[in-house]
Amino acid sequence: MEKNLLLPALPGEMLAHLETPCIVIDMDQTRKNIRKMQDMADGAGCALRPHIKTHKMGLFARMQIEAGAKGITCAKISEAEVMAAAGIDDIFVAYPLAGEFRFRRAAELGKKLRRLILGVDSIPGARALNAAAAEAGVRFEVRMEIDTGARRTGISQERMIDLARYITEQPCLDLTGIYTFKSLVYRGAATTDAALAAQEEGEYMAAVAERLAEAGIPVTDISAGSTPTAAGVAGTELVTEIRPGTYIFNDYMLYREGAASTGEISAFFYATVVSTPEKGYAVIDGGTKTFPMDIMLNTPPYHYPSYAVVDGREDLVLTRMNEEHGMLTALKGDTGLEPGQILRLIPIHICTAINMQNRVYLYDNGILTVQNVDARGMLA
Amino acid sequence: MEKNLLLPALPGEMLAHLETPCIVIDMDQTRKNIRKMQDMADGAGCALRPHIKTHKMGLFARMQIEAGAKGITCAKISEAEVMAAAGIDDIFVAYPLAGEFRFRRAAELGKKLRRLILGVDSIPGARALNAAAAEAGVRFEVRMEIDTGARRTGISQERMIDLARYITEQPCLDLTGIYTFKSLVYRGAATTDAALAAQEEGEYMAAVAERLAEAGIPVTDISAGSTPTAAGVAGTELVTEIRPGTYIFNDYMLYREGAASTGEISAFFYATVVSTPEKGYAVIDGGTKTFPMDIMLNTPPYHYPSYAVVDGREDLVLTRMNEEHGMLTALKGDTGLEPGQILRLIPIHICTAINMQNRVYLYDNGILTVQNVDARGMLA
Repeated sequence: MEKNLLLPALPGEMLAHLETPCIVIDMDQTRKNIRKMQDMADGAGCALRPHIKTHKMGLFARMQIEAGAKGITCAKISEAEVMAAAGIDDIFVAYPLAGEFRFRRAAELGKKLRRLILGVDSIPGARALNAAAAEAGVRFEVRMEIDTGARRTGISQERMIDLARYITEQPCLDLTGIYTFKSLVYRGAATTDAALAAQEEGEYMAAVAERLAEAGIPVTDISAGSTPTAAGVAGTELVTEIRPGTYIFNDYMLYREGAASTGEISAFFYATVVSTPEKGYAVIDGGTKTFPMDIMLNTPPYHYPSYAVVDGREDLVLTRMNEEHGMLTALKGDTGLEPGQILRLIPIHICTAINMQNRVYLYDNGILTVQNVDARGMLA
Repeated sequence: MEKNLLLPALPGEMLAHLETPCIVIDMDQTRKNIRKMQDMADGAGCALRPHIKTHKMGLFARMQIEAGAKGITCAKISEAEVMAAAGIDDIFVAYPLAGEFRFRRAAELGKKLRRLILGVDSIPGARALNAAAAEAGVRFEVRMEIDTGARRTGISQERMIDLARYITEQPCLDLTGIYTFKSLVYRGAATTDAALAAQEEGEYMAAVAERLAEAGIPVTDISAGSTPTAAGVAGTELVTEIRPGTYIFNDYMLYREGAASTGEISAFFYATVVSTPEKGYAVIDGGTKTFPMDIMLNTPPYHYPSYAVVDGREDLVLTRMNEEHGMLTALKGDTGLEPGQILRLIPIHICTAINMQNRVYLYDNGILTVQNVDARGMLA
């Protein structure tokens, strides 16, 4: 990690061109991150279907496909529409669709793609989706979402056979797979075990597929894995596909979880010091409209949370924010900062950070360009 | 406040057209909110310069000007550029500028406006701003920011005379006023006294102006006031201008602070239930990329924070979010919700909520239209 505040990774002459507060993506390291995950998946004989919610840009989706990804994963129909317009033709919307407007847009989108897969996790959801498909005169390929412990969407163990059977009974739905989002297991105060989580995830999903087969409902696609567990889940050889997203840029949360080194983080904030009212704190030109309020998992309540990590200055903590003000507190009593100085900050969670920007900078071999975040802030 | 979940304020046939998760702005109530604040300011003989960071849309800035506002306030040069393009010609960027790129853009913007005022709160900032003005061959009208207790930007009592003198010595800067952001006073656990805060704010700023006059540095504009303190500060007749922003829509935070009634809240989230895995919780189609993580001030650590208030259902709490998943917990054990149901939610803090959307819906006399959030998510 860059250790000298006055020598950020970006050359000085580049810094002068940055309009802060902003996000700069290091393309060279990003390509390495894409390559590393693809090589791992290929080595394990597991398909990689990256989740694009992290970057939301057609440019990076195409890079992932060109590197060997089987297709992409989206969370929203609106994201999938943007990716389709960018030339991606195999998209899994890993989210249980609800709402007539989504069904209509999904039916239209399906006609444009080589393959569109939708998520289903409830009988009412399956019923509505099938009715919409029938009305639009299309068929939907679907995967059933399984809850493996995240306790958000996903069907429970008790009800999954009934749901699978119900889906197969719908004339316009084709059930081809199952998927889950489990991520890490948090046991106790701050213990997280990616290997354990990955093993549990793979075994659980394989067991589900087996139960479905016994019930006469075979599925071909078993999809799991997030960035922290991707290698572990693929390594179990119990799933056919992984869907990591954050690995393309990585962030401080993944570093702290042991899923990435600081050198593998390829997206950074740059902010300008605007005011130093006292030695003890400085104000930078970004607040809650720039830095997400996600804080490190397991941050004890009695600790100051830092909403971003000031690169090379562990003595500075982003403790408080207003909309366009970020208050950097000096743990040693003196920030040593002056108005006009530019700081590089490491995102805690890059996915929500990029979603707040209309545009990001791309830094590639000494050249700085501006790129629109194509699918950010969209409805549906 | 709407009490029946199945009868949201928006007519049923309108709900069917909404693409969730989204924000809907009630134009009729918004006009009343604009009128009420303007009438209050006019009655107190105080200029109103609304802060547009809440709405970030030229449409609403024009409505505020047409209602009688003297000009508008922005936090960023990029916001001011968008407002200038929308026809607003009197803009105060109430933020201490830093960074060559901002100075350049400010100089260009100044040439297009009838009046541009910039914030200054430090000697290095004033020096850099003057140098940039000289280089661009322009003059900048500036106001000195005073810290009245918010402890973010703003010069302290001890150093303000020196700064004011330094500014007046800069050949390309015209110091015409002072401004502050104080907002409420929080005394003890959960006590907030708007009247006390407003009185303190007015008296403090008047005292600063008097000290400056005694030092031979008279200023004509004394600007203060946020939505909770606007009426109180104007009522002191000690300031010449107020800069409230959130009053145009209001939100649950302002309601809890006693600054607005629930009937005066004119912007709402609408979200669709996507999954009900258990009786005890339901998942809606918005998470941290839809609902800001601002929680109620003074929420005790042992309470569940709710990231939005489910209108008419105080037994439902938005306790946990992922990027596109919002987990609604039923305090009484059963959400009673089904996939496909649409909920209306009251924003805790509307300013950060609108900033996450590319577009919002406007509801006006039975007609629903889509409006771009012109200045959201911008650099600089």
